[in-house]
Amino acid sequence: MNPDIPPSDSTTAPPSSSATAWAARDQNRVWHGFTQMATYAASRPVIVERAEGNWLVDVEGRRYLDAISSVWVNTLGHAVPELDQAVREQLDRVAHSTMLGNGNRVVIELAEALAPLVPVDDPHFLFASDGAASVEQAAKIAFQYWVNRGVNGRTKFLSIGGAYHGDTIGSLSLGADGFGSDIFDDLRFQVVRAPGYEDAAWADTAAALVHDHQGELAAAIIEPLVQGAAGIRTAEPGSASALADACAQHGVLLICDEVATGFGRTGTLFASEQCQITPDLLCLGKGITGGYLPMSATVAAGHVYATFLGADLGPETLYHGHSYGGNALAAAVALRHLELIQKPKVLANARARGAELAELLAKRIARAPGVVDVRSIGLLAGIELSENLHELTARRVCAATVEQGVLVRSIGNVVTVVPPLSITSPELELIVGALERSLTETVNGEMAT
Amino acid sequence: MNPDIPPSDSTTAPPSSSATAWAARDQNRVWHGFTQMATYAASRPVIVERAEGNWLVDVEGRRYLDAISSVWVNTLGHAVPELDQAVREQLDRVAHSTMLGNGNRVVIELAEALAPLVPVDDPHFLFASDGAASVEQAAKIAFQYWVNRGVNGRTKFLSIGGAYHGDTIGSLSLGADGFGSDIFDDLRFQVVRAPGYEDAAWADTAAALVHDHQGELAAAIIEPLVQGAAGIRTAEPGSASALADACAQHGVLLICDEVATGFGRTGTLFASEQCQITPDLLCLGKGITGGYLPMSATVAAGHVYATFLGADLGPETLYHGHSYGGNALAAAVALRHLELIQKPKVLANARARGAELAELLAKRIARAPGVVDVRSIGLLAGIELSENLHELTARRVCAATVEQGVLVRSIGNVVTVVPPLSITSPELELIVGALERSLTETVNGEMAT
Repeated sequence: MNPDIPPSDSTTAPPSSSATAWAARDQNRVWHGFTQMATYAASRPVIVERAEGNWLVDVEGRRYLDAISSVWVNTLGHAVPELDQAVREQLDRVAHSTMLGNGNRVVIELAEALAPLVPVDDPHFLFASDGAASVEQAAKIAFQYWVNRGVNGRTKFLSIGGAYHGDTIGSLSLGADGFGSDIFDDLRFQVVRAPGYEDAAWADTAAALVHDHQGELAAAIIEPLVQGAAGIRTAEPGSASALADACAQHGVLLICDEVATGFGRTGTLFASEQCQITPDLLCLGKGITGGYLPMSATVAAGHVYATFLGADLGPETLYHGHSYGGNALAAAVALRHLELIQKPKVLANARARGAELAELLAKRIARAPGVVDVRSIGLLAGIELSENLHELTARRVCAATVEQGVLVRSIGNVVTVVPPLSITSPELELIVGALERSLTETVNGEMAT
Repeated sequence: MNPDIPPSDSTTAPPSSSATAWAARDQNRVWHGFTQMATYAASRPVIVERAEGNWLVDVEGRRYLDAISSVWVNTLGHAVPELDQAVREQLDRVAHSTMLGNGNRVVIELAEALAPLVPVDDPHFLFASDGAASVEQAAKIAFQYWVNRGVNGRTKFLSIGGAYHGDTIGSLSLGADGFGSDIFDDLRFQVVRAPGYEDAAWADTAAALVHDHQGELAAAIIEPLVQGAAGIRTAEPGSASALADACAQHGVLLICDEVATGFGRTGTLFASEQCQITPDLLCLGKGITGGYLPMSATVAAGHVYATFLGADLGPETLYHGHSYGGNALAAAVALRHLELIQKPKVLANARARGAELAELLAKRIARAPGVVDVRSIGLLAGIELSENLHELTARRVCAATVEQGVLVRSIGNVVTVVPPLSITSPELELIVGALERSLTETVNGEMAT
């Protein structure tokens, strides 16, 4: 599945089909998220045309190692024959039928296959397509859980510093302030905010807040084990139990947002396993289809789900649903992907390569110019640069790495490295080598000026 | 593509694969949106296994005419050879690559193909997967538009009575109160509310509210021509111009939510065309992929987009993005679907069958027992039942219709009929015949008890 670091097959492309021409066309009509469009084409984006295993191929035939897993969604590489086949076979049945009041066989099969694997007791699956929607669903279910139980005043959420849960108004409210969030304060609801993972005592403080606010909290939400968008901020695996215990003690529901951490990213199928916590609500997305098709899911424990049972069309019902929730093509891929990812060699490779990546970063990146910290868990790594550098330095380091055929991306002053679970040792060497050169050249160049 | 009302091919299925067994398995693990799960399996849901043209086929081989277009997403029927082929061809390239900071050829081609067709000046396309996300994006863009322009206080939205814009907290805030919305008031932001389409003067009142609140409104949002979830409430095509004019006069952005009305549903490619309005922001979803794959998009006019241009990673940037936004498989289907739907015969059929459906409803349903009103525009029709009937009557009428092999669905006391654009005259006869029998039997049966 993963070719050994192949050479570029770039040839003399006519100007109209050049990457530059495509980038200009792209800038002209497509609005890319989290991207400043004025400088988009000039920043030499990769315009993908096809892919092979862990490699993306652009419109000129240039090859790029997908060292960000297409922003954390890809697990087993691209163009996986078994996943392609799952799509083709489902196409011969049906692409989509509604989940509102009716069902689809492959969605039932998927839910049944997920049920014994998710860290949720007696799980029930409400599907959507955007990860943010899975968080919105979890928040609304937690909120209505108290309404259905006839308990007043449990209308607030506890969330932690640096949290990222998505960009819709509800998920943005649960997320932390800063960078593109707080300008929307007039639309966001307020939350009880605990410290983030940079504070070793985060969970004890969060537990104390749960105790203080017990009568008004519907739920607490965390990204177990690691806060991804905060710059790959890791927590001690055992730390979350203090918060989980406080939630259990006071009946506050615990929501684990595993949109980024689920499906092997941290070395286990779910990060909650390593934290030894069992959430009442679990949010899934990204890796659920191996990076193929949009799908997300909110998983509710049986005791939560039970409060929504009542008379037909009665007030206990969850009046929430997305048109494409439980899409059959996505479900077919997710079902097949679940079989593949359970093969022992997949998670074994993720763990072994994760350890290797951590070692390579410690040995060759941690003391590189401008680097103040390296952090990783499984195949989710961050290289934090000094805040004394230019605010665009991390971005420039990534651009220089992309020029070497390795696609990475920065969040603020952190360069993120998030390879697929199918990454190989030679490919990790390639990634770290390219990063080492980019860091040295970019930071030294900057200091020289 | 559309077989003539074929007979059921149901045969003797073993119990373990019976529809009843599948429904029980479904109820055990899948949480269906807008569905009371306690009564799910007992309500004899259709468990879809495959589809042919306008017909869904369940796990026992029973055939159901999809008279709700799988809840308003399907346009050209199921298993459309050209759309299947588009998926297969894109699978040979790549299923997905990220839109954050990078591009994908087929997404550029899709945006370029959509550009001359959408009723937006100099359009720019921000893709997501859930329709609700497209509304959230439009709201956030409208809000940040004023921030980027340095104008303070433009933090509110005008929305209309009965509006439905999706179920995430932001879209739920823009939507009207009632049935499953207002219990979330502690999480929703407040809006300026104008009357809905049941009030003929809705737009004049809305225009007056725009005038009164001009300094605090970021945008106004409407579902042009018809409010779908409100029970297929139609407006005079010309009525919206009063609101559009007031918005233009006061610089308030106009958002048209065409998630439900787009892609031919109302007889034109977009409903805004019939209203002769040109929104600043347009929300697309559902029919964009012909009902195949999750995709939504927010379309921003050039003058809105321009306010987000600035220095790389500067504060004008839109820090918003969904992992699967611009999914390549969905884009490939959407691109091919756009070619198919532009064939003159497709919209011609939608208009002719829409007129036929209106006529059939007027002739055979409007005076049926319990019916107080029938409303339709294009292939979006609602049959309103008397509020004096049992609150579950519309639901029971639908169940009785499903028993006859025609899948319809109710919203409150309104039975909705939303056939695909590929519906045929004999199939419309079948739908209306089944509805007529169901209405008569259900309502007369109820009155007799």
